[in-house]
Amino acid sequence: MDAMSALRPEAREAPESGIVEVVNFARERGDLIPLWVGEGDLPTPDFIRVAANASLARGETFYTYQRGIPALREALARYHLRHFGRDWGAERHFVTGSGMQAIQLAVQAVAGAGDEVIYPEPAWPNFPAAIGIMGARAIPVPLDFSPNGWTLDIDRLFAAVTPRTRAIYLNSPSNPTGWMADKETLAAILEEVRRRGLWIVADEVYSRFVEGEAARAPSFMDVSDPDDLILYVNTFSKNWAMTGWRIGWLSAPPAMGQVVENLIQYSTSGVAQFMQHAALAALDEGEEFLALQRQRASAGRTIVEARLAATGRIRYAPPQGAFYLFFGIDGQSDSRDTAKRIVAETGVGLAPGIAFGAAGEGFLRLCFARSARQLETAADRLADWIAR
Amino acid sequence: MDAMSALRPEAREAPESGIVEVVNFARERGDLIPLWVGEGDLPTPDFIRVAANASLARGETFYTYQRGIPALREALARYHLRHFGRDWGAERHFVTGSGMQAIQLAVQAVAGAGDEVIYPEPAWPNFPAAIGIMGARAIPVPLDFSPNGWTLDIDRLFAAVTPRTRAIYLNSPSNPTGWMADKETLAAILEEVRRRGLWIVADEVYSRFVEGEAARAPSFMDVSDPDDLILYVNTFSKNWAMTGWRIGWLSAPPAMGQVVENLIQYSTSGVAQFMQHAALAALDEGEEFLALQRQRASAGRTIVEARLAATGRIRYAPPQGAFYLFFGIDGQSDSRDTAKRIVAETGVGLAPGIAFGAAGEGFLRLCFARSARQLETAADRLADWIAR
Repeated sequence: MDAMSALRPEAREAPESGIVEVVNFARERGDLIPLWVGEGDLPTPDFIRVAANASLARGETFYTYQRGIPALREALARYHLRHFGRDWGAERHFVTGSGMQAIQLAVQAVAGAGDEVIYPEPAWPNFPAAIGIMGARAIPVPLDFSPNGWTLDIDRLFAAVTPRTRAIYLNSPSNPTGWMADKETLAAILEEVRRRGLWIVADEVYSRFVEGEAARAPSFMDVSDPDDLILYVNTFSKNWAMTGWRIGWLSAPPAMGQVVENLIQYSTSGVAQFMQHAALAALDEGEEFLALQRQRASAGRTIVEARLAATGRIRYAPPQGAFYLFFGIDGQSDSRDTAKRIVAETGVGLAPGIAFGAAGEGFLRLCFARSARQLETAADRLADWIAR
Repeated sequence: MDAMSALRPEAREAPESGIVEVVNFARERGDLIPLWVGEGDLPTPDFIRVAANASLARGETFYTYQRGIPALREALARYHLRHFGRDWGAERHFVTGSGMQAIQLAVQAVAGAGDEVIYPEPAWPNFPAAIGIMGARAIPVPLDFSPNGWTLDIDRLFAAVTPRTRAIYLNSPSNPTGWMADKETLAAILEEVRRRGLWIVADEVYSRFVEGEAARAPSFMDVSDPDDLILYVNTFSKNWAMTGWRIGWLSAPPAMGQVVENLIQYSTSGVAQFMQHAALAALDEGEEFLALQRQRASAGRTIVEARLAATGRIRYAPPQGAFYLFFGIDGQSDSRDTAKRIVAETGVGLAPGIAFGAAGEGFLRLCFARSARQLETAADRLADWIAR
């Protein structure tokens, strides 16, 4: 029997990332401006790398706590107190080998074969894919597009609940749309899941990247209790330019601590101590760098939005958070094809909207968390291409 | 609804590691000699740490290849050519975030709800636990103990196959027993799975730790073709004292490359580049250190075995590979209780045999990959305890 036929169907049929597909199409092209992945252009700042080096130099290369080293869990508690006003303690925070792994652990905790999880779409494709690998079904509920903003029809979200539903996954601010749930929406979703005994998987990874004066996006932490059935998935990647490190965290009701420890034990068995010391430095000393990141993204957005809007040939809703412009081009409905032609003809790498589900078709995602100069060049090339 | 009741049953019921249970029982005890986990006492050697630091200093902190950086995959191909005589190319090797993750990916590839996987027991408990989290069933087949060695009744192994069986997991040399499959056994298992269209998950993590003159243990690579349905799981942890790093590799038929990439994408999305440069140094420059590790383990075994056997009150089979003594003490049948009393009364940490399944009950696992001085002290304390 050949390998592909012998594989478990859920593994064989796990989708290739539609983003990676376009990246691979043009990875080797010269003069490329890569705006297709959710990653800035700054390397991890020195003070974080130094903390990793120091731990390595101390010989901290042995097995450690599955849940994360106590110092980092305490730092996560301080971070949440500082920025979310919640003094919920260190025991609810668990260190994971990426935000993606936090999602995988959350999925393993709540959904298996025959179960369903509901999520608004367009959405980062890795969430529904992780659901599929567990043998569960991810049920998309489309956000509605208008130039005034993407909106979530909450009644439609609730109407998707069936006896098989185990959780609602909510990513706010949203990758790729920039949609952001207000506090009332979060409270309404919480009320519904409380009534039905469902879980929320809260992906608030872009919480600190919001437009305007607010310090952060509304959070389920604003409206919930510590024992609510909410699994928060988060990452060090975006705030502190640590995309390549693969470290994140999961926050969960403390009662399930042993379960989370077991799920970590049987996945990757924890995160390197020297990685955790780097993350600790990021939390405790990283606010200045994060402010710089946010300011760069905001400036980047202004550049890209102004130049593309001036073509008069794009449609988009101004993002309320995260660091993406999610836009359509008049006359271009096949986003995979469009993204490939754009990168081939201009060298600007964009992610095709179809990678974020059917509700994303016709759109393209552009990451603007990068240098103004690079974004100006990219915007000029794109505007020329659009105006042809 | 409370969190524990609302969890997926397979998550709620994932077993706590029976090793960690005893470790937690006495983690804070003073004057502890920790022989309970599969970890030596040497930190990662300098040349490996230096390679990680150099990569960090180069600013290699961005997303990278999901399958692993090409240079490391090439080094894995060289390593397998050098030590296993197989020139099977780089495309079959995938970098993972620990040997444990390689196991998890292998499980996800072959077994889901309703499926069964067969494995000889006693066994490292993380494998059956990973199977359980996927909603599949791990079916143990006991190895038979005699003071001349543990033996696998291969007919009994095959008799456990049912229409639901998807794979056989074989760990050789075995943790915890030190049992090692000979080439004829490997060939017979391969023949059977070929006939039935089953997978082998080959855990050859301890391949380089064997007693006597042989450079390595017999491997499925000695008897198979590159396209056989075999998933090799491996780790940098044991050979190069990198337990705390969490980096390993999976080797698989190249035809399933995209599937493995997808499974990695939706688990942890890859391994940090600076980790991979450390692993590359380990493969290319690590033979001298590995020889030292093996020599220390061999010396350690001699110390422990001589001293404990002299009590006349232990039973064990001389290990053929790996670095554990798996022994029972006359009159002690409850291994969890015995391990707790021993650590409380002597400060020597041992893993209870029951942690490795019912077939391990009555035994204790001692890791001898440590300094002679420490092992002498531990063996003296244990011998005194046994002789009381």
